[in-house]
Amino acid sequence: MRPLDLIRKKRDGGELSSDEIQFLVQAYTRDQIPDYQMAAWLMAAVIRGMSRSELSALTAAMLHSGKVLDLSDLPGAKVDKHSTGGVGDKTSLIIAPIVAAAGVTVPMISGRGLGHTGGTLDKLQSIAGFDVNLSLGEFRRVLKSCGCALIGQTAEIAPADKKLYALRDVTATVESPYLICASIMSKKLAEGLDGLVLDVKTGSGAFMKTEKDSTFLAELMVETGERMGKKMVALITDMDQPLGLKVGNALEVEECIEVMKGGGPADLRDLSVEFAAWMLLLAERAPSLEQGRKQAHELVRNGSALERFRQIIQAQGGDAGVIDDPKRLPQAKHQVQVLSQAGGFVESIQCEQVGVASLVLGGGREKKEDSIDPAVGLVMHKKVGDAVRQGEPICTVHYNSDARLNDARGLLGQAYRIAEKPPVVRRPLIHRVISRQGAKA
Amino acid sequence: MRPLDLIRKKRDGGELSSDEIQFLVQAYTRDQIPDYQMAAWLMAAVIRGMSRSELSALTAAMLHSGKVLDLSDLPGAKVDKHSTGGVGDKTSLIIAPIVAAAGVTVPMISGRGLGHTGGTLDKLQSIAGFDVNLSLGEFRRVLKSCGCALIGQTAEIAPADKKLYALRDVTATVESPYLICASIMSKKLAEGLDGLVLDVKTGSGAFMKTEKDSTFLAELMVETGERMGKKMVALITDMDQPLGLKVGNALEVEECIEVMKGGGPADLRDLSVEFAAWMLLLAERAPSLEQGRKQAHELVRNGSALERFRQIIQAQGGDAGVIDDPKRLPQAKHQVQVLSQAGGFVESIQCEQVGVASLVLGGGREKKEDSIDPAVGLVMHKKVGDAVRQGEPICTVHYNSDARLNDARGLLGQAYRIAEKPPVVRRPLIHRVISRQGAKA
Repeated sequence: MRPLDLIRKKRDGGELSSDEIQFLVQAYTRDQIPDYQMAAWLMAAVIRGMSRSELSALTAAMLHSGKVLDLSDLPGAKVDKHSTGGVGDKTSLIIAPIVAAAGVTVPMISGRGLGHTGGTLDKLQSIAGFDVNLSLGEFRRVLKSCGCALIGQTAEIAPADKKLYALRDVTATVESPYLICASIMSKKLAEGLDGLVLDVKTGSGAFMKTEKDSTFLAELMVETGERMGKKMVALITDMDQPLGLKVGNALEVEECIEVMKGGGPADLRDLSVEFAAWMLLLAERAPSLEQGRKQAHELVRNGSALERFRQIIQAQGGDAGVIDDPKRLPQAKHQVQVLSQAGGFVESIQCEQVGVASLVLGGGREKKEDSIDPAVGLVMHKKVGDAVRQGEPICTVHYNSDARLNDARGLLGQAYRIAEKPPVVRRPLIHRVISRQGAKA
Repeated sequence: MRPLDLIRKKRDGGELSSDEIQFLVQAYTRDQIPDYQMAAWLMAAVIRGMSRSELSALTAAMLHSGKVLDLSDLPGAKVDKHSTGGVGDKTSLIIAPIVAAAGVTVPMISGRGLGHTGGTLDKLQSIAGFDVNLSLGEFRRVLKSCGCALIGQTAEIAPADKKLYALRDVTATVESPYLICASIMSKKLAEGLDGLVLDVKTGSGAFMKTEKDSTFLAELMVETGERMGKKMVALITDMDQPLGLKVGNALEVEECIEVMKGGGPADLRDLSVEFAAWMLLLAERAPSLEQGRKQAHELVRNGSALERFRQIIQAQGGDAGVIDDPKRLPQAKHQVQVLSQAGGFVESIQCEQVGVASLVLGGGREKKEDSIDPAVGLVMHKKVGDAVRQGEPICTVHYNSDARLNDARGLLGQAYRIAEKPPVVRRPLIHRVISRQGAKA
């Protein structure tokens, strides 16, 4: 097999066989195909697209480029959740403890923040001592004791994805639903799962801005997972404004603790419960989605979820004291309010801009090497549809550097659009459910 | 300007500005853009295509990456001919002396054989001592004394093309009319020309198999040249069977000498005269194409063309004795006839296969590093439409190695298709003329 022929085939819109795809991925991962050939193939794949069978083959080849966990010695079903990323998107920290408290194993390998979106690992690391870099052996140990562990990708998991992603990042071949699907699924399926629940964001704060694009990606991922024998569901959820009220690493951990204590904003609570319910359904712990929702609510109400979160923090070396005293989380030195320039109703919030504001404050990375300030971020006082008076605070900025404040304040001021009347159409929290699994949402 | 943005733009079907194209080519030639980024851009350009203005900008950037000859100190017009390549395609060796003998300067920088096609340089080098590696200073000196010089590409001419072609060769981005056009035109326009005549081959022995593809490439080249202020014409000529009767380096030189002595096969003679006529027209040496043809015929008839060829060979250090005694050219040790398996008429000759047969005998290169055997090749006794008896020789193979003979003989046997009746439709020698220059063909 010659790489040149496989590039030519994809260039001309042809379909590669599974063997051909496997050869490409294996040889590239072993440094037997140079970057420039893989770059040409990737660009052809981005423009020409891929068939479902090519996509399965690509995902499988990337998955098997590294270690695939075998968790069959642990009792019950193994189910995880993955989000395509958003602003204030912190549900993993709530969902994982709930589902683990119900007796399901949740082996969660997560990522860092990307661009304007936050990352689960960055949020967890705002808890002093929390170690996200467990070895796979330690991961398994925590999974056994807590039913859940939350770590970052290790070098052993899907090394092909790591190498391919680095190349895609510098050759404008990131933005392809096919390559995004293969990248996500190859890493997630390495967790040795029985089922996977996908949160595919849509709207101004998501990578996929339109419901059409989000749905297409979701369908690709569901089908790819099912072809590999996994139970799959994808929820297309709203990311046209931030989820919850808090954006920023420590602030988001704090908000998750609020929800697990029975409080917190309704959108964050409802979405977390919905995902937990789907995971319980896929794990066959709940007979129906409705029963799953009830169980999830009860595990929050009776304190089981919070208790499970405490155990996980302890097992991963973190300061569990933050649960009883969230002020132990890193606190920014300064706070300032952003005031509304006009009175009326919040018509829209440009969500990506809010994410960039948090990034600019130091809550995200502009370059891979940047370090993160866990304390900074913002707390929103007004969301879409809320009434607002002129001069009333719309959000509070938590910051450590005056220099960065100005940029962030400018972005936030522009992000809010105030209208005289309340918006007529409200976007739903869940736009669509894509699944062949029994229950309807 | 960031390479990533320019890759993304082309990926999404956008049009790059001249500045953007120039930045890409310059930075790549200076090793400031890595191969993998250029490979991604090239693949996007192959699939998305290019606008005429992008193509002009690309050609200009590649042209100006190196030295552009200024021949304004030489009298009269400077006109050259370029062929996209074929089998037995040897017209340059006839045309250049004719046109130079008419007082036109012909600064011909040619290429080597590529794949199944022969190359002008390889043919010339079958003449003992002929030096195709002149410096640009020596090139100018021979041009001045003979009106024509025939050399290979030097490192000073279009270095961007050299680097880009090497990358295209290993990333399946060769087969794009846009990139082929920019590659050819950037090298040819570096010759300091006033006009250029293009021979775009079409048929089973050409790189462009269909008249549609050949015409598209021809139109791109004519328009690109005209945008740069050059007089242009392209002839779409037949390459569905070899041109002339002889294929192989020394054999083709011999056949060119036959034509310049007033003999040789009609197709080769007619096509050479046609191109010479166009060059004389573009150089304003002939008032019409018809007058150009007459002049070309006369320059052959009165021996001026042959005499000019002798001068060029001498000026470039070659053994001009081959003109009076072609047996001084390298001769293969063995000859064998291929006999017709059936009686009837030659319906078609698979032309690429004939080229491959010559290559297999040692007349071409399978890898760049291969050396060429100038003596080997074949002489055809039958061409399309000719009557043939069973057992009658259809061609004679000139070879030096028994091992290579068998493969070549197999290919040649399959290349001929014999039918009971003569073919109804005969392909013309010249399919189409593409030009805005006065005369019609």
